[in-house]
Amino acid sequence: MSSDVVLVLEAADFAAKKHKNQRRKDPEGTPYINHPLGVARILAHEAGITDVVVLQAALLHDTVEDTNTTFTEIEERFGEKVRSIVAEVTDDKSLPKEKRKELQIQHAPHCSYEAKLVKLADKLYNLRDLKSSTPAGWTEKRVEQYFIWASQVIAGLRGTNQTLEKSLDALFKERNILTG
Amino acid sequence: MSSDVVLVLEAADFAAKKHKNQRRKDPEGTPYINHPLGVARILAHEAGITDVVVLQAALLHDTVEDTNTTFTEIEERFGEKVRSIVAEVTDDKSLPKEKRKELQIQHAPHCSYEAKLVKLADKLYNLRDLKSSTPAGWTEKRVEQYFIWASQVIAGLRGTNQTLEKSLDALFKERNILTG
Ligand SMILES: [Mn+2]
Ligand SMILES: [Mn+2]
Repeated sequence: MSSDVVLVLEAADFAAKKHKNQRRKDPEGTPYINHPLGVARILAHEAGITDVVVLQAALLHDTVEDTNTTFTEIEERFGEKVRSIVAEVTDDKSLPKEKRKELQIQHAPHCSYEAKLVKLADKLYNLRDLKSSTPAGWTEKRVEQYFIWASQVIAGLRGTNQTLEKSLDALFKERNILTG
Repeated sequence: MSSDVVLVLEAADFAAKKHKNQRRKDPEGTPYINHPLGVARILAHEAGITDVVVLQAALLHDTVEDTNTTFTEIEERFGEKVRSIVAEVTDDKSLPKEKRKELQIQHAPHCSYEAKLVKLADKLYNLRDLKSSTPAGWTEKRVEQYFIWASQVIAGLRGTNQTLEKSLDALFKERNILTG
């Protein structure tokens, strides 16, 4: 073992505590922490990502957006680089939702390589989730629109990781969504 | 990074999926997965445990006891050694609860070093949890009895890890529970 395992477990434990009162949108109300754990697993196991800073950022990627966590807290606990990746993938929740979605499309091509990896794995996890169960209250049309929006964000993330992009393309193809 | 990080994230993700419908006993209903993540964090971060097999077993330690996971599944996914540690820390749920608690006291001294580590960290996590909040429906007396029972199990695990045993002793001392 390396101290990398310690760093990864610290981030996983921190995120689990922060997200403890939050649930996913699936009908079963799966604990939210399953999502960042799954995003980190996709990066390590499927995409072969070896950079512990990226894996920590994946585990922490929704803590500031969705919980009381601050960027200062992330920097003090996990360092400046992790903070900076998390900041790149954090939406500004003071903006209306449609504006945030539009900004994700615009910002994607300008993200760092590390943030692009987290974003690709995040979208892959969410699209697989949507494929396996429809969130409570979502129409089929809303699911379809989410897939189309995701494909537009991903257009700006291409050329980052072939494995992740291939897996995403397979999901888009199933729905006849044309991608670049 | 080493492949150890991949192995740890695989076990964390597997356990999170298995425990997804289970909650801790605290009044907030914290997701159960926070417990195995915290047990693994204690081993890596506090006790300096460097053996990835022990950390995987910690992440998986309640999957067979509390979910539909089988030992065969654990062995196929994580290997024979992880399976064997998980088996050592799994109670036989077909027995009445009092019998299971008695057997934990009797079996503790005969456990492998690896299983003893997981048991020490598991008890440390649970006692800290009980200290920070009382489970819904538990009386103060029941909490006290849990501490006393835990001290009897731990009596059979001593000489395994000084850091964990010191942290446990500090908790017993606060409650005036005499330990060996
Ligand atoms: Mn996310
Ligand atoms: Mn346990």
